[in-house]
Amino acid sequence: MAVYTEVAHDELVSFLAPYDLGAVIAFKGIAEGVENTNYLLQTERGNYILTLYEKRVRELDLPFFLGLMNHLAARGLPCPTAVTTREGRTYGYLCGKPAALITFLNGVSVRRPTARHCAELGAAMARMHIAGADFDDYRENALSVDHWRALLAASREEADSVRPGIHDALARELDYLEERWPRDLPAGVIHADMFPNNVFFLDDRLSGIIDFYFACNDLYAYDAAIALNAWCFEPDGSFNVTKSRRLLEAYHAARPLRPEEIANLPILARGAAMRFLLTRLYDWLNQIDGALVKPHNPLEYLTRLAFHQQVQGPQGYGIDESFAA
Amino acid sequence: MAVYTEVAHDELVSFLAPYDLGAVIAFKGIAEGVENTNYLLQTERGNYILTLYEKRVRELDLPFFLGLMNHLAARGLPCPTAVTTREGRTYGYLCGKPAALITFLNGVSVRRPTARHCAELGAAMARMHIAGADFDDYRENALSVDHWRALLAASREEADSVRPGIHDALARELDYLEERWPRDLPAGVIHADMFPNNVFFLDDRLSGIIDFYFACNDLYAYDAAIALNAWCFEPDGSFNVTKSRRLLEAYHAARPLRPEEIANLPILARGAAMRFLLTRLYDWLNQIDGALVKPHNPLEYLTRLAFHQQVQGPQGYGIDESFAA
Repeated sequence: MAVYTEVAHDELVSFLAPYDLGAVIAFKGIAEGVENTNYLLQTERGNYILTLYEKRVRELDLPFFLGLMNHLAARGLPCPTAVTTREGRTYGYLCGKPAALITFLNGVSVRRPTARHCAELGAAMARMHIAGADFDDYRENALSVDHWRALLAASREEADSVRPGIHDALARELDYLEERWPRDLPAGVIHADMFPNNVFFLDDRLSGIIDFYFACNDLYAYDAAIALNAWCFEPDGSFNVTKSRRLLEAYHAARPLRPEEIANLPILARGAAMRFLLTRLYDWLNQIDGALVKPHNPLEYLTRLAFHQQVQGPQGYGIDESFAA
Repeated sequence: MAVYTEVAHDELVSFLAPYDLGAVIAFKGIAEGVENTNYLLQTERGNYILTLYEKRVRELDLPFFLGLMNHLAARGLPCPTAVTTREGRTYGYLCGKPAALITFLNGVSVRRPTARHCAELGAAMARMHIAGADFDDYRENALSVDHWRALLAASREEADSVRPGIHDALARELDYLEERWPRDLPAGVIHADMFPNNVFFLDDRLSGIIDFYFACNDLYAYDAAIALNAWCFEPDGSFNVTKSRRLLEAYHAARPLRPEEIANLPILARGAAMRFLLTRLYDWLNQIDGALVKPHNPLEYLTRLAFHQQVQGPQGYGIDESFAA
């Protein structure tokens, strides 16, 4: 929610020279994206998002992220594409930072998704997984189960200032997750950050998926488990099983979940809660003075984790005999 | 440069109900405006800026600001207009704050104006002064010469932490300004904040003037003096008399400056430097922890004030015999 880098008009004009976009009509910094600086750019050709990649996004990963978007869009997924220069490059440099021009997607994100929105998301996520199956680049998930122990260690000293005893409780949960984490489920390219602010709707129909900067190769069902955490809890912390069932049903209709994926949903949901709890805990304890972005309270995910810990099986997420088909 | 108020989709939809704008196509917070929260709103009808007025803008002043914009635009000035509801209201309430829908203007502001830009600005400012002459509302300038003493007093305790001796030096300058400030020059509605970030250009032609939230009734030549400060100094602090001459020439061609306005330019420019120095000094000394906006360094305007103090007469701003006509 910030513009970290201010771009002067002459710098913009130089950056745009290798593209065929015509004259600039409007250029405004937008308050979107915690990681990067984003501008809305309007030219004679249309509307674009100009993204400057700040330090959290590694330049080495850009070909994966931008290539994936173009790959998915070419297969009909409603996601932005990276505009290429006349020489075929998908990004350049602006103010000393890597920067890309991304097509502008219509739509509005919803803060409180309904069951209808969840169904739309489930179907689109399944389509994304299918469309990404033949994408030939690979990116390891830098925030997978194998990285959580180090993430917890980074918060070791101060974790208990957030909630007494939380460090040891999370260490025990990690023991559980590491021991039982499924390794042989169907895998491929996942979004890995499918939160409501990354999904656009027009008239309650999903119109776009954005922000592929956590995309990576991991278990498909883990992506769905992230969405269960991000889309199906109510503001009071309760789990809405109707939303969860609609999300999973719609996913299943487009890409049938295998019995072993379904059976592992509870542990995947626990792991997804753990992953966001750990990064939020770290960001909470390492706030930068004067930072423009207020970190999320990690305790929200402690509540979600507690919910998943008491779930008895897939039926806790609304899975019933209709999924056996 | 911040989004202070987050607007949820359902709140937006309720707010838009009294307008005839069709369905929402896109809605993004934009990093523009230090005082207010601004969103870019795209609907079936077109592009708009949705502005939520945060506490610095008094609701009592809104009819003046919005009415003025509509008045000036109706007379051909390239400025945004406030969209009216079916009942003819120019603003409503959103998230408990006054909020207005403003038409979107194409164009890009320039960080380093050229002499050409200064000439464009001078002509447009003169047209604005003429177009506002028959606007029948009135708003006192809350930051005029009569308010500077109180503004300096508010920084009394800490002023010298910025530069030793600055408080007494400014008090002496105020003695000078108060004694000689012209009171009988042509007056009317002025913009009073005509900085480069409030002016848009397309292909070096002025395409829009925005942000009328300091507009008020005061001396026309004082508005020009503010622009001399805001547009004609180089990054190294030097004064570019070519830019100043082009700005004033173009103004003069559209609204001829009277001899007494020209004669008073040096003191008006000193006053304009003082006005921005005092508010920047106050904001600098009263920074809010965790504020999203970094205040401007006040010392920049101390340098500008020093320039104006040594100016010998209107010729210091590029005024020559051609202005006598």
